[in-house]
Amino acid sequence: MDLDVVFLGTSGSAPTAQRATSATLIRRGGERLLVDCGEGTQRQLLRSDVGLVDLEHVFLTHFHADHYLGLPGMLKTYALRGRDVPLTIYGPAGLGDLYASLRRVFGNLTYPVETVELAPGDVLRRNDYEIRAFAVDHGAQAVGYALAEEERPGRFDVETADDLGVPAGRERGALQRGDPVTLPSGETVTPDQVLGPARPGRTVVLTGDTAAAASVVDAATGADVLVHEATFCADERERARETQHSTAAEAALAAQAAGVRLLALTHISSRYFGGEAAEEARQVFPDTVVPRDFDVIEIPFPERGPPVLVPKGGRKGRMPEPAPTP
Amino acid sequence: MDLDVVFLGTSGSAPTAQRATSATLIRRGGERLLVDCGEGTQRQLLRSDVGLVDLEHVFLTHFHADHYLGLPGMLKTYALRGRDVPLTIYGPAGLGDLYASLRRVFGNLTYPVETVELAPGDVLRRNDYEIRAFAVDHGAQAVGYALAEEERPGRFDVETADDLGVPAGRERGALQRGDPVTLPSGETVTPDQVLGPARPGRTVVLTGDTAAAASVVDAATGADVLVHEATFCADERERARETQHSTAAEAALAAQAAGVRLLALTHISSRYFGGEAAEEARQVFPDTVVPRDFDVIEIPFPERGPPVLVPKGGRKGRMPEPAPTP
Repeated sequence: MDLDVVFLGTSGSAPTAQRATSATLIRRGGERLLVDCGEGTQRQLLRSDVGLVDLEHVFLTHFHADHYLGLPGMLKTYALRGRDVPLTIYGPAGLGDLYASLRRVFGNLTYPVETVELAPGDVLRRNDYEIRAFAVDHGAQAVGYALAEEERPGRFDVETADDLGVPAGRERGALQRGDPVTLPSGETVTPDQVLGPARPGRTVVLTGDTAAAASVVDAATGADVLVHEATFCADERERARETQHSTAAEAALAAQAAGVRLLALTHISSRYFGGEAAEEARQVFPDTVVPRDFDVIEIPFPERGPPVLVPKGGRKGRMPEPAPTP
Repeated sequence: MDLDVVFLGTSGSAPTAQRATSATLIRRGGERLLVDCGEGTQRQLLRSDVGLVDLEHVFLTHFHADHYLGLPGMLKTYALRGRDVPLTIYGPAGLGDLYASLRRVFGNLTYPVETVELAPGDVLRRNDYEIRAFAVDHGAQAVGYALAEEERPGRFDVETADDLGVPAGRERGALQRGDPVTLPSGETVTPDQVLGPARPGRTVVLTGDTAAAASVVDAATGADVLVHEATFCADERERARETQHSTAAEAALAAQAAGVRLLALTHISSRYFGGEAAEEARQVFPDTVVPRDFDVIEIPFPERGPPVLVPKGGRKGRMPEPAPTP
């Protein structure tokens, strides 16, 4: 089951030539979960490998303009295409009001939209993972989101199965699924005899905007990837405090305290280029990356290797141009 | 006095990877007039040669989302920068209501904003040009805009001035400005003796969205450049009619009837790439271009040559990338 994070917009409150405002896409198997939808997100999707697919789940962390201004245009474009797939938008308290006020922009849609308000601590259970809303420190109505996979069954111990006389075939499949099997000898073999300890699922945590907060460390504990905002560097620590944002060093301290495998900094203020934030954070937490727009972080199962940043940011410079119209 | 048109967003109702939604910038001397402000316009400015300058005049042609969704984000970004330069937004009836409803997005600004509603026929007089709002056919509350320069004084006839004994120097400057001068001989020379007929100023006409309309032909008569929407090609003529848009051929017929020097097609539906529209229009009106985003049309004074398309669309593929953050 593939799991990755596509960085569609990594700028702070204002865009730059290189970075669009906030939008991050989690891809898990065939599912696509968009977290925040800054101005231009529909076009960032079009310019990425993803394309403007019919997203079914959009999560807003809070209601500052740079996190939702792309929503009305995207909903409108879906309607122009005649989309009929339902869409659910999740967000903190106030989402319903926001949606009502945006309706005048896009008018009637061709597909149903449901809004779901989430409070910190709320959990959306899915088939084999869950999404948890958690508290952040960026005003009353702001949350972060964690996608946490369920534990997977332990590794199958082939040698022991051989010793116990379990035939190669469907009996072993049953044991792997957690069902006991009865052998031709009449003996019963239970899963715990041939399976190792359950293996952890993967967790990705996105803070949205936040000042340094214990609740973020709690939510990120043991996560594979923590996507933490780092609007400022240490030279602007006071300003970060006033505006309820984080410095790169504060994000790194959170990553360190939570023991995550990889820290990805985003929401970079236009006064920085990304390199400063990376340098500052790595002094505290070496496994830090600062993705550019369109970069992807792939998250394999832990036994297959660490999460890794795949730079695709250069791709936008290599977009095929339409034939010139002389 | 330089005059050009920068195409910042040339797509139809929905953006594509190559084309952003509507935004066109007229640059005249040091002035910058933005016509329409689709989603992502602030970033298109940043990605262009123009930069996100403190625009002082924004003109909206109508209130469909693809023509104004970039406004709240841009106003917000200006405020984040602490802008204090006043901004005036012009648009058809309903602009005040729209602005009031957008205020909840960007909250308090650091600079004054004035909204001015214009009806077809209204004229804004400037120092040496005027802007005329004219009727288009795209619903009751939609207008196009024409920027029309005043006539310039005629060419100075050096030979006649020599014959009349006008000394080289400030006397000739005075005559060029339209003032009579008295020579040392006591004789008076009047401007009409040494100046040719007044020379026309330049005119740029932008339709915004419209079906084919006689009012557009009237407004564009004799224009140097007509920027006309061409959402569809002839294969979608019925759809163009239903949605009050134009086909490329209809735009070309308008250009022909108005006798413009250059036709630029914009608002290209995502189902086309631009080449089809150019081909269709040129069968009627050969002097047609279909600018890509970031392309510029330069408009010299007529005696210096025809308007010319300067392709800069490739530029966005050559944007300097920030240093990678490994």
